[in-house]
Amino acid sequence: MVPRLSSGWPSRLFWWRAARTPGAHGQPSTRNGASRVPPGVSPRVLAGGGPAVRRGSSSPSSRGPEVALTCERYPVRRLPFSVVSEEDLASFERIVPGRVVTDPEELEASNVDWLRTMRGCSKVLLKPRTTEEVSCILRYCHGRNLAVNPQGGNTGLVGGSVPVFDEVILSTALMNQVISFHSVSGTLVCQAGCVLEELSRYVEERGFVVPLDLGAKGSCHIGGNLATNAGGLRLLRYGSLRGTVLGLEAVLADGTVLNCLTSLRKDNTGYDLKQLFIGSEGTLGVITAVSILCPPKPGAVNVAFLGCPGFAEVLQTFSACKGMLGEILSAFEFMDAECMRLVQHHLLLACPVQESPFYVLVETSGSRAEHDAEKLGGFLDQALGSGLVTDGTLATDQRKVKMLWALRERITEALSRDGHVYKYDVSLPLDRLYDLVTDLRARLRPPAKHVVGYGHLGDGNLHLNVTAEAFSAPLLGDLEPYVYEWTAGQRGSVSAEHGVGFRKRGALGYSKPPEALQLMQQLKTLLDPKGILNPYKTLPVQA
Amino acid sequence: MVPRLSSGWPSRLFWWRAARTPGAHGQPSTRNGASRVPPGVSPRVLAGGGPAVRRGSSSPSSRGPEVALTCERYPVRRLPFSVVSEEDLASFERIVPGRVVTDPEELEASNVDWLRTMRGCSKVLLKPRTTEEVSCILRYCHGRNLAVNPQGGNTGLVGGSVPVFDEVILSTALMNQVISFHSVSGTLVCQAGCVLEELSRYVEERGFVVPLDLGAKGSCHIGGNLATNAGGLRLLRYGSLRGTVLGLEAVLADGTVLNCLTSLRKDNTGYDLKQLFIGSEGTLGVITAVSILCPPKPGAVNVAFLGCPGFAEVLQTFSACKGMLGEILSAFEFMDAECMRLVQHHLLLACPVQESPFYVLVETSGSRAEHDAEKLGGFLDQALGSGLVTDGTLATDQRKVKMLWALRERITEALSRDGHVYKYDVSLPLDRLYDLVTDLRARLRPPAKHVVGYGHLGDGNLHLNVTAEAFSAPLLGDLEPYVYEWTAGQRGSVSAEHGVGFRKRGALGYSKPPEALQLMQQLKTLLDPKGILNPYKTLPVQA
Repeated sequence: MVPRLSSGWPSRLFWWRAARTPGAHGQPSTRNGASRVPPGVSPRVLAGGGPAVRRGSSSPSSRGPEVALTCERYPVRRLPFSVVSEEDLASFERIVPGRVVTDPEELEASNVDWLRTMRGCSKVLLKPRTTEEVSCILRYCHGRNLAVNPQGGNTGLVGGSVPVFDEVILSTALMNQVISFHSVSGTLVCQAGCVLEELSRYVEERGFVVPLDLGAKGSCHIGGNLATNAGGLRLLRYGSLRGTVLGLEAVLADGTVLNCLTSLRKDNTGYDLKQLFIGSEGTLGVITAVSILCPPKPGAVNVAFLGCPGFAEVLQTFSACKGMLGEILSAFEFMDAECMRLVQHHLLLACPVQESPFYVLVETSGSRAEHDAEKLGGFLDQALGSGLVTDGTLATDQRKVKMLWALRERITEALSRDGHVYKYDVSLPLDRLYDLVTDLRARLRPPAKHVVGYGHLGDGNLHLNVTAEAFSAPLLGDLEPYVYEWTAGQRGSVSAEHGVGFRKRGALGYSKPPEALQLMQQLKTLLDPKGILNPYKTLPVQA
Repeated sequence: MVPRLSSGWPSRLFWWRAARTPGAHGQPSTRNGASRVPPGVSPRVLAGGGPAVRRGSSSPSSRGPEVALTCERYPVRRLPFSVVSEEDLASFERIVPGRVVTDPEELEASNVDWLRTMRGCSKVLLKPRTTEEVSCILRYCHGRNLAVNPQGGNTGLVGGSVPVFDEVILSTALMNQVISFHSVSGTLVCQAGCVLEELSRYVEERGFVVPLDLGAKGSCHIGGNLATNAGGLRLLRYGSLRGTVLGLEAVLADGTVLNCLTSLRKDNTGYDLKQLFIGSEGTLGVITAVSILCPPKPGAVNVAFLGCPGFAEVLQTFSACKGMLGEILSAFEFMDAECMRLVQHHLLLACPVQESPFYVLVETSGSRAEHDAEKLGGFLDQALGSGLVTDGTLATDQRKVKMLWALRERITEALSRDGHVYKYDVSLPLDRLYDLVTDLRARLRPPAKHVVGYGHLGDGNLHLNVTAEAFSAPLLGDLEPYVYEWTAGQRGSVSAEHGVGFRKRGALGYSKPPEALQLMQQLKTLLDPKGILNPYKTLPVQA
């Protein structure tokens, strides 16, 4: 659908100032969806050329030097778990015949995280297909005191998805079946190893959307998403997984199957046990199946990509958006000029608007295209007229919508090509959100290369990233605890959506009081008394 | 705002077939909001005359005969807690000076539940004002092994909010301060004893709404809402409290203050401890403060009250609604003809449409009145044209919106005036939802008077109620376990939103597997090892 555009907009706004290039699937587009290059503007590469590189799919060998062992780079000591024996391997072979991986080449991709900053040395990876197999594996490991690292798509950004030492890797890769889908309510029940993008496709074909979307969708597993309590791009509209997940099934450390896989919108029969497993990063149980409420697929999706002259204008644009777009606002993302330069440089994507200090991506999703266009038109009129926005482009068809989204979604990938990345993912009060980036830029010297800020502004979530040619302990010392202290000073969260994993467990105390940390530890002890599930993760380092 | 109505609608649809009567605040209205009574229709009393009777506000003496002691009516044995002594009272007086209630008259309203089916015999009620006072009270009771019954507005429907024996009643009535409100994000932080309706008014004056609304709003406390995980009328649109509550503060059984009172949209720093307390009915801790995300107040609210010829048509109307109203659909409630008769008889409210087997209340909330009117018009055209709906009326101004809502919200009150009420609150698959009502009607004989069904159809939540002149053990035997078995047979929930309390704890096993019940018990033991918090509630009866 082509929106009806307000006649008062500068015609420049809807130019696609770019031409088609090899690898880019689209024609540049005019305001009506046809192609043209405006006079006086040199062709640039469009955003979203080929399919995005899937997080976790690149083999480590293709991506640079050897990654140091986690236990050599960071101060961590192996806990007294048993070591996998030949007899154990034989037992595993009986539980998951033909699905016991011991080949070092094959294990490599599961020992190293996607960011290539952590490496475990696990000797065995298991690929169960059913909940019963997961239960047998855990019962066995529990009895033998073997540590287990549950692994989904291995797209995590805090080192939570790879072993730290020689933990048995329990992969959900073969647990990828849809169990049921209810075409009236939109309730999807599936195994934990389903890839998010495939689930999206499955439900979209049936007129629904998964209420979760994120850059790693091509690789990440829905079970891992739940274990991380992933936020992503649609949280602003559909809320968090704590509300949209209706049920789940988890296997506890001793192999007990906990079936909370209901599909009811409301269920107040006692404590909501599923919440324990959402966001606990595999430390309290292994999620094996999920029931999730999918909202109807919106009839119309529009994306506006806008340039803003300053961060104050980004915030004012957000306020205007909320007021004028109301219930159809489905995303409000921002990125700074430094992000755009990295995306241009490393991924050869083109900026579709005038170079600006900040860029904003506004998405609307609604049931009536003409109503949405009218609302969006009113907002853009005001934003341009008042100088909040200096340039912009609008996409209404799916292909171009994806291209604009790629500019935002592929920042992580561009950063990872820039060298070693120090990643921070914080929640902050909106009016101080970007100050952390500017403060840090003033503070850091080489070997820091780039300090960038982007993220889910609508959720108060800043992704702060610093790149350097290689890992540098002194640079890490300049960053931490500075970033955490700064965040705590604003009563923010030192992990908004990425979780704690291995990397942030020392920082928990900046966002949680001692009583909370103690209760977390008590819950861990209750559910996993031997501590075999994803050890060295999520919980604070014990004295 | 007056919606633009489609010209094709039967003119009858927008008549208000009623005249003003004493106690009714409104003029009957034409389609344009002016007043008229259509020819040939006799005036009837409009819905929503005076203010609704507030749940919990009527004094028991004004409402009929003495309520039997819970411990005499139901098989339950007092656990070996200490008995409150004179010395204890003196200690309480030191903690909350002047706020220790021992007067039997005053205690009466807190010993008896709103439904007047349960009575405890507590000798003391404490009214702390601060979290510190709650902490001191619990530390003291923990040390003395005194059982504690946390109480909010005492509007609960499962006997969770009153003592069973002589528990110390800890009331949040004086913890009624708003701590902060952020006018950009809409984040409200307040004490647990704030009354929901007062919070609603507070945030509405500032351009926001509380994402929770329910019939008991005039009395219920926000802390009690969280402890119950109340669902209510807005869940369809804004989701459950599990997503909208950003943080909370709770005091544990031993007096430890657990401060999880953050106001961040996203916070993945470890386990989400607040979820433990939401829906745990005061058995794991006493909620003392709440942080909740309030959505912007919609610019336009419309309510259509429709008559449907059968339950199949109710379901089809719901499907049509979801498809055509999309993001602006904010409620879809239904009630059967029997409910309407009780509301008419006991509360003197008038049915604003032709007598029908079923009635549906559809609410839309959106940011642009003319867009909403167009969407709603399209839906009503189709619903009337296809015979799904046989008659209807539409309200666009706030006063009439409230009148239509009163028909639905005050059913609970009408039922309570009909005699002893057996209440069931179940989640069921939509296509079987009403079968339970018809099955039960066929099964029951006197002393059952009325068997009615109504509820939040959009959430799959049926309120099934049976009335009788007085409590009857044989009738209870006809109802239970029949209703629970029927529900379990459909994989439903035996408590959708009311919770478990005292009344449903024997039924938990119909909706939860033994592994879940065991884990619930383990969590209780971990957080409240002496079991002093709201004993005899929520957890299954132990063997």
